Amino acid sequence: MKFGGTSMAGTERIRRVANIVRTQAAKGDEVAVVVSAMAGETDRLVTFCREANALYDPAEYDVVVASGEQVTAGLLALTLQAMGCRARSWLGWQVPIRTDDAHASARIEEIDAPALIASMAMGEIAVIPGFQGLTPDGRVTTLGRGGSDTSAVAIAAALKADRCDIYTDVDGVYTTDPRIVARARKLKNVTYEEMLELASVGSKVLQTRSVSLAMKEKVRVQVLSSFVDADAPGADSLPGTMIVSDEEVEELDMERQLITGIAADKNEAKVTLTRVADRPGAVANIFGPLAAANINVDMIIQNIAKDKGETDVTFTVPKADLPRTQALLEERQEAIGFFRMISDDRVAKVSVVGVGMRSHAGVAAIMFKALADRGINVQAISTSEIKISVLIDTDETELAVRVLHSAYGLDAEVEAAGEE
Amino acid sequence: MKFGGTSMAGTERIRRVANIVRTQAAKGDEVAVVVSAMAGETDRLVTFCREANALYDPAEYDVVVASGEQVTAGLLALTLQAMGCRARSWLGWQVPIRTDDAHASARIEEIDAPALIASMAMGEIAVIPGFQGLTPDGRVTTLGRGGSDTSAVAIAAALKADRCDIYTDVDGVYTTDPRIVARARKLKNVTYEEMLELASVGSKVLQTRSVSLAMKEKVRVQVLSSFVDADAPGADSLPGTMIVSDEEVEELDMERQLITGIAADKNEAKVTLTRVADRPGAVANIFGPLAAANINVDMIIQNIAKDKGETDVTFTVPKADLPRTQALLEERQEAIGFFRMISDDRVAKVSVVGVGMRSHAGVAAIMFKALADRGINVQAISTSEIKISVLIDTDETELAVRVLHSAYGLDAEVEAAGEE
Repeated sequence: MKFGGTSMAGTERIRRVANIVRTQAAKGDEVAVVVSAMAGETDRLVTFCREANALYDPAEYDVVVASGEQVTAGLLALTLQAMGCRARSWLGWQVPIRTDDAHASARIEEIDAPALIASMAMGEIAVIPGFQGLTPDGRVTTLGRGGSDTSAVAIAAALKADRCDIYTDVDGVYTTDPRIVARARKLKNVTYEEMLELASVGSKVLQTRSVSLAMKEKVRVQVLSSFVDADAPGADSLPGTMIVSDEEVEELDMERQLITGIAADKNEAKVTLTRVADRPGAVANIFGPLAAANINVDMIIQNIAKDKGETDVTFTVPKADLPRTQALLEERQEAIGFFRMISDDRVAKVSVVGVGMRSHAGVAAIMFKALADRGINVQAISTSEIKISVLIDTDETELAVRVLHSAYGLDAEVEAAGEE
Repeated sequence: MKFGGTSMAGTERIRRVANIVRTQAAKGDEVAVVVSAMAGETDRLVTFCREANALYDPAEYDVVVASGEQVTAGLLALTLQAMGCRARSWLGWQVPIRTDDAHASARIEEIDAPALIASMAMGEIAVIPGFQGLTPDGRVTTLGRGGSDTSAVAIAAALKADRCDIYTDVDGVYTTDPRIVARARKLKNVTYEEMLELASVGSKVLQTRSVSLAMKEKVRVQVLSSFVDADAPGADSLPGTMIVSDEEVEELDMERQLITGIAADKNEAKVTLTRVADRPGAVANIFGPLAAANINVDMIIQNIAKDKGETDVTFTVPKADLPRTQALLEERQEAIGFFRMISDDRVAKVSVVGVGMRSHAGVAAIMFKALADRGINVQAISTSEIKISVLIDTDETELAVRVLHSAYGLDAEVEAAGEE
């Protein structure tokens, strides 16, 4: 079970969390709990580090910021004990959670935890601070902001857990953002690949990294709300969204939809280079320098060559990286050999995601017809095996999401709206 | 070098501390620094623990409260790095500082730190959180409130340090409280024994435990102020008070005073039991139950037996324990066999302390005459090898301290007042 910073913000909320944990343990399950720092605490500690040293040493930064999760782990263990549960905390170096030595953004390498497993087998609830680990030479690491989801999945894998329940401030994964589409439905199941595509296009329920790890380690992850009363009737019927493998989702969910969800992302900007020479190496000249500058290029569209062996190249980059992208390409205008650079940060990427589309033709056609019927202009298209994304004007984002949600039959029945 | 919570309260003050450390290291010294948590932080964490679990598990309490020093250790290392020094933090479990498993009040058992020593030999400043350690089975311990002084002395001993500089909010040890006697003088040197007697009677500059450890391990401790500018001229001339062995103080200080200092303590209460049977076992019947209840009896005065084989017994206990003491003795009035119990919490203990009195007769006579000349009534007397204490009316405390300070020739020359 993993609880985020909002759930751990203060002793009253920690009591709520302890109650959820106690209820789970009372069913006879062995339980390990991974916790974040109190909401706001990591920011406070990061500010101290910046004040102390603007170019801070990430090894010492890790020593400072890892303390936030240490506090909540101890407090949750104390609170569980106050409720009559046996519980103890296991800090990153005590488990140990072995990582590489990339301080402030470490990767978990190994969790071999016989003492932890033995303690849980004896009925002790294990409380583990998320986000933190131990380098080969015995120093504290952290996994990067939001790393506690990844800690939880890694620990679930090491423990061969039946399930990794991630408690958040939403009660599951929806077909789309319920603030945009009132008739969005909560999904019972979603595959790892779908979750990755939904996350990477803006449905930020879980850290992308934690979903990749869950897929690799075949950890069944459930997303659910920590603000549901653990003692309420029916609270034990897995009320969230299960993230599982393709195979399992097919077994569980015979009447699966063609499309699982619609995601929208307004954080990209479009760049078009006109009249790029259509010769070998021209494209490498564009994207090589961007990659070297750590600018993540997402969609790339190259039209077929026009007359005179020239072509237009369009691509998207994160909005925050647009100024750097423009500067880099202007410097190289001659080397690349383009005529003009046209940028546009008033674009949005809307994507339909679903493993169902693998075995169905015509998914893309539905999308293009639905958008065309409402006069929404598609500026660019990119596809993967389980996703089709289009770039549109940012003002039309919500309209496009609503239109597509209906077109793929995702709208909840009116009488069932708000239910599952 | 050890810095307390007031010196570490916020990044601006930590910069001040880093400047003092940098100045010391720039002289070519190998430096280890022990730090407390930011002022107020330990209280905040203790409050969290109490809220989580009123009868808290000290093992989890230690996990929570040890985080305060972890934060300041990382921040001081970062700040030193920002000033161009090489520095790194060493947490209790990394050194390791091995303790017993008496959580929340652990005792240091061993510090064998080859890695720490090697790092310092290579020119790295070691920053070590005070107050924390590691049990034999790998859990976090703390040494009890104020334990960072003890951490500093223990680390100085393990490193065979030339000196353990303890930075506080006073600039040294004085002949008496300068708020009572304006002409109090800062002592250049004081022996461990004198420091213990001065501390135990109310001059709370250092933790008693840290002084005992320094005496046992022969660590030379200097008390000085962290609010002196490290760059000021003369700031490197050991401006504080050195706490050293008898032998060293004799070498250093040929013209040593008879008396080193005068201390006053208003935290005791006096209890008199009248007409106690003067027979074997009677006194054990009084003090046995008090010891069992963890009530610390300080002075004990038994007058010679009067007629009829009866005597009066007077003793002092901490003021806070007076109600418990009264209740315990009332319960046992018959078993003990006393006539009346008379309590008085308006008493003060005034002590003259100095190793010089070992070799000089007449020290006590000076005290009694000086007090009698001013009409101060002595209610009880107790002595040790280097201390004479008297119990007086609490209203006469300041007068008694001033009278004794003059009587033993401790007053600073008027023209040199405030200097040393």
